[in-house]
Amino acid sequence: MCPPADQPISATNGGEEMVPIINDGPHISSSTNGQINKINENTSQQPPAVKSHKGLYGRASDFLSNTSNWSIIESTLREGEQFANAFFTLETKIKIAKMLDEFGVEYIELTSPAASPESRAHCEAICKLGLKKTKILTHIRCHMDDARLAVETGVDGVDVVIGTSSFLREHSHGKDMTWITKTAIEVIEFVKSKGIEIRFSSEDSFRSELVDLLSIYRTVDKIHVNRVGVADTVGCADPRQVYDLVRTLRGVVSCDIECHFHNDTGCSIANAYAALEAGATHIDTSILGIGERNGITPLGGLIARMMVADPDYVKGKYKLSMLRELENVVAEAVEISVPFNNYITGFCAFTHKAGIHAKAILANPSTYEILNPADFGMTRYVSIGHRLTGWNAVKSRVEQLNLNLTDDQVKDATAKIKELADVRTQSMEDVDMILRIYHTGIQTGDLKVGQSAVLDRLLEKHMPSREGSPNGSANGNKRARIEGATA
Amino acid sequence: MCPPADQPISATNGGEEMVPIINDGPHISSSTNGQINKINENTSQQPPAVKSHKGLYGRASDFLSNTSNWSIIESTLREGEQFANAFFTLETKIKIAKMLDEFGVEYIELTSPAASPESRAHCEAICKLGLKKTKILTHIRCHMDDARLAVETGVDGVDVVIGTSSFLREHSHGKDMTWITKTAIEVIEFVKSKGIEIRFSSEDSFRSELVDLLSIYRTVDKIHVNRVGVADTVGCADPRQVYDLVRTLRGVVSCDIECHFHNDTGCSIANAYAALEAGATHIDTSILGIGERNGITPLGGLIARMMVADPDYVKGKYKLSMLRELENVVAEAVEISVPFNNYITGFCAFTHKAGIHAKAILANPSTYEILNPADFGMTRYVSIGHRLTGWNAVKSRVEQLNLNLTDDQVKDATAKIKELADVRTQSMEDVDMILRIYHTGIQTGDLKVGQSAVLDRLLEKHMPSREGSPNGSANGNKRARIEGATA
Repeated sequence: MCPPADQPISATNGGEEMVPIINDGPHISSSTNGQINKINENTSQQPPAVKSHKGLYGRASDFLSNTSNWSIIESTLREGEQFANAFFTLETKIKIAKMLDEFGVEYIELTSPAASPESRAHCEAICKLGLKKTKILTHIRCHMDDARLAVETGVDGVDVVIGTSSFLREHSHGKDMTWITKTAIEVIEFVKSKGIEIRFSSEDSFRSELVDLLSIYRTVDKIHVNRVGVADTVGCADPRQVYDLVRTLRGVVSCDIECHFHNDTGCSIANAYAALEAGATHIDTSILGIGERNGITPLGGLIARMMVADPDYVKGKYKLSMLRELENVVAEAVEISVPFNNYITGFCAFTHKAGIHAKAILANPSTYEILNPADFGMTRYVSIGHRLTGWNAVKSRVEQLNLNLTDDQVKDATAKIKELADVRTQSMEDVDMILRIYHTGIQTGDLKVGQSAVLDRLLEKHMPSREGSPNGSANGNKRARIEGATA
Repeated sequence: MCPPADQPISATNGGEEMVPIINDGPHISSSTNGQINKINENTSQQPPAVKSHKGLYGRASDFLSNTSNWSIIESTLREGEQFANAFFTLETKIKIAKMLDEFGVEYIELTSPAASPESRAHCEAICKLGLKKTKILTHIRCHMDDARLAVETGVDGVDVVIGTSSFLREHSHGKDMTWITKTAIEVIEFVKSKGIEIRFSSEDSFRSELVDLLSIYRTVDKIHVNRVGVADTVGCADPRQVYDLVRTLRGVVSCDIECHFHNDTGCSIANAYAALEAGATHIDTSILGIGERNGITPLGGLIARMMVADPDYVKGKYKLSMLRELENVVAEAVEISVPFNNYITGFCAFTHKAGIHAKAILANPSTYEILNPADFGMTRYVSIGHRLTGWNAVKSRVEQLNLNLTDDQVKDATAKIKELADVRTQSMEDVDMILRIYHTGIQTGDLKVGQSAVLDRLLEKHMPSREGSPNGSANGNKRARIEGATA
């Protein structure tokens, strides 16, 4: 259960419908596509809730929780390279690495230098970039040959992985836990002897035997591995399983805990959050989630999730306004479109449509937004020219246009907008024109509330798109006619 | 922690690398785009795990869990109509409603008849379709005017909603809990008197006061509402919060519990799953998740998640092969692309790329797949012509081409494929040609393992795309040359 907002709740008025339009609130203007109502950000509109250090929804009592103390291992250049469409040139890899450094991720992970000669050359080149904040890791199989190659590339650390589930032990590498343990120790001690970081991860951890897992994690923790890794390689895990496993592991090892979640069944973000709640310290991400199959925890999605837990912590660590550009660069490199419903940057992430939503958003954005678009350099939109619109959103627009209409008149105009929008969605320009014509009709006395047929005639007369004659422009251009209507 | 597979684990071979290529296993053939290795489904390849009644990962001890006993309330025609791009004609709505009926969803939910005259006409028309399995609901504000309209449309039930959070009480409808309770009782008793189903839902439940919520839910349960609804209207909730709230609610009411989750912070699928684990009975979905902002739990994503819990239950209820067509129809209607990483139907959902993955998938698809693509009329792909490829995947292709090469020879040919793929990704046609030329070289004695330069000369001679001369086709067309190489 979410704790209540720390703002005191003002007394409600006990029956009358409240219409708390804030006149000095968000500035609204017509947007470029004309159909949508754009509100320039006014961050003071955001309630204290999302500005507090712990966020509104943190659980103060969770002593295990690391939701305010975690790091990103950004794996676009490793897991992401396993995405079906990915073929990164060195130039692209360098561009992405530099941008991730500027964004502020703690680590980037690169494809194993053992994968191909080019992979090795790329890894060496990226290590020479001199990134400012971000440490460089490479990801290898649990094998001395791979480890020897890795430590020579100049990386800051090595991420070692081996399959521990019966599926992978039987059908992939064919080794038993004794062999795995022996080789892991050899590889870890070798990498540590070179003075760089080392992580040991199981693969397919959620289909591995718990005792096997805990046993090998305890062993590698004793020889001071930097991190142990838990990986949901097939995307089968759910948040309660993740919480249980990580909490158990937290009691077994003293090192950091890294988690890697595939998204086949839609839990990669929630699993990352559950892992941090249970004491994990590092989360693997990729930009847009690209990776094997449908990918892993997306960077933007993880950010969206963590902003709810502790917005100040997230905003303090990462340059969030870069998210959109990072996604665009990767989308272009791998020839995909950013999904319509992408977290934070999707075209509709901050678009409000239903009348009841639009009304409340205009009064207080927190009513229907848990994230503040301004934190990401994004903008909020309220769409009003459609059949689900409401009179409160229309009233707000009337006020922005400086028209003088009573509530009854606004409701009457809204009914006409809905009627027209039932046939086709009305652009913002259309809505503005209807309102101006309505206003002029009221001012001149040609129109009264409820005279739908009279309004139809006024609209036919003044709105060119509704005129029967294609060249009925005796009164001049469209712009002049609109201005005439507002005069 | 996931329980282990119920299959006994065969003993591992204690050191030697196992290469369990199954010769009579999946049939592999070149796909249309030439770049990818297509495996026709052989369902017998899927291990017993995903066929068992409860699935591999169910928790037998969860007495609250409804993960094998739940229903879908499909809201594409209500929540989905609030998606920024949505403007459904009656024809489109009828098409979607009929398809959802055939797919097998238990309910569809339609936009309120109070929203506009057209919305009302559409609702009435859909009620007259005579759907076979699916019941029809409409979604209204908690208001007698809306309720009176709704019951006249011919729907099987009414979904009533009202905001209960302080945000919505203050900035949306402005009513207190006393008013909400009084009106809810009036609306519920009225709708019940008409002999149809009624649900009462709070809105923004996770930012509402727990005591307020439980109090009103208990009240409406006492007057025999069919379902109470919990809604994460702003997408702030995480799975542990959902589990806690639904479990608590389960102890307070005896009626069904419906849940509605927005996806702003990436938890809509995981939250639905957590809700069912805690005893919820109905989940709201929309096709591709379309809805306000970036939408709600997607139908396909929920199916993917629930297939892990109980595949037989899901396959028994729904015609899963229709998922792709349903998504295509909606995507076209609202002018969006199906996201590249969409659950189940995304173009890469069953594509395997890294060498280590490809090798294991060829041996046993369950190594890197938790879902069986055949259950959805989909196909698995293994990509091999890239720098991350491995020799086991190449060996599998060699066997499909009926070429006779030793493991050392396959490894040698793989090295060349990786070298070429380091420059640009090789199509399946390219890979096949390299293998055929390699094979011919070995057969004629022109080539031996390790003679990279000799192989380069053979490739230059026989692969037209590698020839320097643009018209160097003295040996006839490409096809003839390929056949020559295999002779």
